[in-house]
Amino acid sequence: MGKPSIPKGTRDFLPKQMARRNYIFNTAQIVFKKFGFQQIETPAIENLSTLTGKYGDEGDQLMFKILNRGDKFKKAVDHGEKESDFAELALKYDQTVPLARFVAQHQNEIVFPFKRFQIQPVWRADRPGKGRYREFYQCDIDVVGTDSLICEVEFIQVFYEVLTALKIPDFNIKINNRKVLAGIAEVIGEVDKIIDITVAIDKLDKIGIEKVNEELASRGLSQKAIDQLQPLISFEGSKQEAFSFLRTFLKSSETGMKGVEELAYIVDYCSELNIDKCLTLDLTLARGLNYYTGAIFEVSCKNFKGSICGGGRYDGLTDQFGLKGIGCAGISFGADRIYDVLEENNLFPQDDMDGLDVLFVNFGLKEEHYVMTFVQQLRSKGLSVEVFPTAAKMKKQLSYADYRNAKHVVMIGENEMNSGTIRVKNMLSGHQEDCLFDDFFQKL
Amino acid sequence: MGKPSIPKGTRDFLPKQMARRNYIFNTAQIVFKKFGFQQIETPAIENLSTLTGKYGDEGDQLMFKILNRGDKFKKAVDHGEKESDFAELALKYDQTVPLARFVAQHQNEIVFPFKRFQIQPVWRADRPGKGRYREFYQCDIDVVGTDSLICEVEFIQVFYEVLTALKIPDFNIKINNRKVLAGIAEVIGEVDKIIDITVAIDKLDKIGIEKVNEELASRGLSQKAIDQLQPLISFEGSKQEAFSFLRTFLKSSETGMKGVEELAYIVDYCSELNIDKCLTLDLTLARGLNYYTGAIFEVSCKNFKGSICGGGRYDGLTDQFGLKGIGCAGISFGADRIYDVLEENNLFPQDDMDGLDVLFVNFGLKEEHYVMTFVQQLRSKGLSVEVFPTAAKMKKQLSYADYRNAKHVVMIGENEMNSGTIRVKNMLSGHQEDCLFDDFFQKL
Repeated sequence: MGKPSIPKGTRDFLPKQMARRNYIFNTAQIVFKKFGFQQIETPAIENLSTLTGKYGDEGDQLMFKILNRGDKFKKAVDHGEKESDFAELALKYDQTVPLARFVAQHQNEIVFPFKRFQIQPVWRADRPGKGRYREFYQCDIDVVGTDSLICEVEFIQVFYEVLTALKIPDFNIKINNRKVLAGIAEVIGEVDKIIDITVAIDKLDKIGIEKVNEELASRGLSQKAIDQLQPLISFEGSKQEAFSFLRTFLKSSETGMKGVEELAYIVDYCSELNIDKCLTLDLTLARGLNYYTGAIFEVSCKNFKGSICGGGRYDGLTDQFGLKGIGCAGISFGADRIYDVLEENNLFPQDDMDGLDVLFVNFGLKEEHYVMTFVQQLRSKGLSVEVFPTAAKMKKQLSYADYRNAKHVVMIGENEMNSGTIRVKNMLSGHQEDCLFDDFFQKL
Repeated sequence: MGKPSIPKGTRDFLPKQMARRNYIFNTAQIVFKKFGFQQIETPAIENLSTLTGKYGDEGDQLMFKILNRGDKFKKAVDHGEKESDFAELALKYDQTVPLARFVAQHQNEIVFPFKRFQIQPVWRADRPGKGRYREFYQCDIDVVGTDSLICEVEFIQVFYEVLTALKIPDFNIKINNRKVLAGIAEVIGEVDKIIDITVAIDKLDKIGIEKVNEELASRGLSQKAIDQLQPLISFEGSKQEAFSFLRTFLKSSETGMKGVEELAYIVDYCSELNIDKCLTLDLTLARGLNYYTGAIFEVSCKNFKGSICGGGRYDGLTDQFGLKGIGCAGISFGADRIYDVLEENNLFPQDDMDGLDVLFVNFGLKEEHYVMTFVQQLRSKGLSVEVFPTAAKMKKQLSYADYRNAKHVVMIGENEMNSGTIRVKNMLSGHQEDCLFDDFFQKL
């Protein structure tokens, strides 16, 4: 038998990593609840038909599909040719499409606006790499059932509060609007090429302006259209200057002008609420997924390549599940990337989040039974307490105490049993003393 | 397009169900941590080779397998015949085998005894039915790396504390020992039939003694052996009487006698700790899985068929992953069944666990912007607060407040803006009053 291992792109989370991940999720949850978001969960497995075609061709290819069983499997072996002959179920690819399915399916059990948060794993058969996994958690909030721009404003507030609570260094919330991008495609006479334009422009940070222009050309944009795009791609200036620029540039596009007004409304609202200092207007922000229809967000921070959060408005996503004309918007926190930022910047709380309060050394069965009432009393106080399970060598027991970050080690051997005292070692100071259990109990 | 749906045997959890499930998991976690258990997670997806053959033939058949992709898929289509030609990965079937794999894989990163808890979904392609799902959560604690019987005693304490905290009515922790069952097989001359005997005896509660005897015969036990089993199957008496009976019955079996002494030690320990009143010795308790080697547990409660918790000792499970001779034991809380018990007995906390503290009615954009500073102040106090996103009809906004179990509804229209007051409706009492925001803020 080979060495035990797990599939590539998946991870085990050891206790310390788990405690740190929980710290991130708990911090986020506290904020989500303050803003009225309620938690739901959807199954890991969805019907393949629910997911197919919602993420583009690449998404369909990267989906993990579940092998049919029994007669269906036999039939596929005899006659099957393509993956969908062998599978009716798939692992979910994100939380957004399942949310749209959920809302359509449960529309009579919920009341709109439906504000929910969801923290669950998703799966993508992507090429694994640094910070890229095949199984990873998404931590999302979404509002379904309204097109009010107060949603976007609240998302910015939530970004601000969660990232501030986590002490993320110099985070920057970038905002743009898909209607503005659509307007641009309209103005430069390339309406059909809106997806090509967004895909190419989205790479500006990574590949630079020249490569973007090459990609636009290779995607079939006319040289004239590319020329027209240049002032936009290279725009620099304040938010208000950007709005002036756009109002001129997009004058002839109704959609584009609507996008500008949405952006301006959100930005002004944030300045009223005093949270606009971390908000940047980024006219080249596009985001990959095609379902966005309004505001789009991405959050970056100091010394980290790529975004740590994202999101946007995606009105109408429930249409394909039979619930028409519903406003939807949401954002997502990239838990793995936030974890890396906190670790690299040493920002996890110093005090051990998963440590033991007291370890009782085990000197033998008689002593073990004797200490049990003390153990029970300390646990009933809510403390995390263990007795080492066997009378192993002291060195082994103390190295366990170290590994578990025990705050106190209590030693009760025959002498202590006779004198009715306990010996306590404070593992932080190294100080050791004999005292009565009651005094120790009171002090903790 | 058909109605949106999810695969059979899977579930969506709406906010209320989610809050209730979290109540169960949180209650359990608080106890787990007091006993020194640390949380870990393992991936949903394991290598098929890790899981195959660990759960018997039925387990292998009920495993959800992931369809190979790309070249591997093409190869399988051309030459594949059996499921394993089409899949290298599978969804995990329980948490115990992945834990054994985890411990073997990370043996140099952890220190023994390794006490961990894990709350994650598992998947089984079982026939769905009442209380039986294809995707369900397991909530487990295990100790790996010691054969000390203090583990078993602590498991009984944990059962006791969690089920007491949840107010589960009249729960009964049944205990038996696999070594006792092995000894019985030895004494009646049917060592090879130990699995047949446990499988048949395990059904006593469900099918009665006559059917059990029929099944024993059909599984090839001699009539003499079946006759010898009768005093055991029909045994009734106190724990101490049971031990006397077993010490005579199993006199000639070393393994059997070891099992009796383990049982007696655990039972005495629990009586010292004053938690033996909910502990019953059940000589016919067998449990289905073959990996158990020592104590086995099952917990039942009033007015509920079947068990709500289970577990036992399964020394040596890590052997097959290359880590030999390690003691292991664990227990599992059946979250779905506990949920049903709490719901049927109306035992969930009355006070809404997921309600809104304050809903601000939206009278229009001017009023919305005006109330935002109040909203921010209340949220900074940790309260859950929403502004209705649009100036919808009052009736709609109030019915949303009802749905969200809002404690207070605040109305600030033009009059209130002019007078600098707010109108607050207490949704519980129905009482409505005008006051200053500061007074409301202080009172909350």
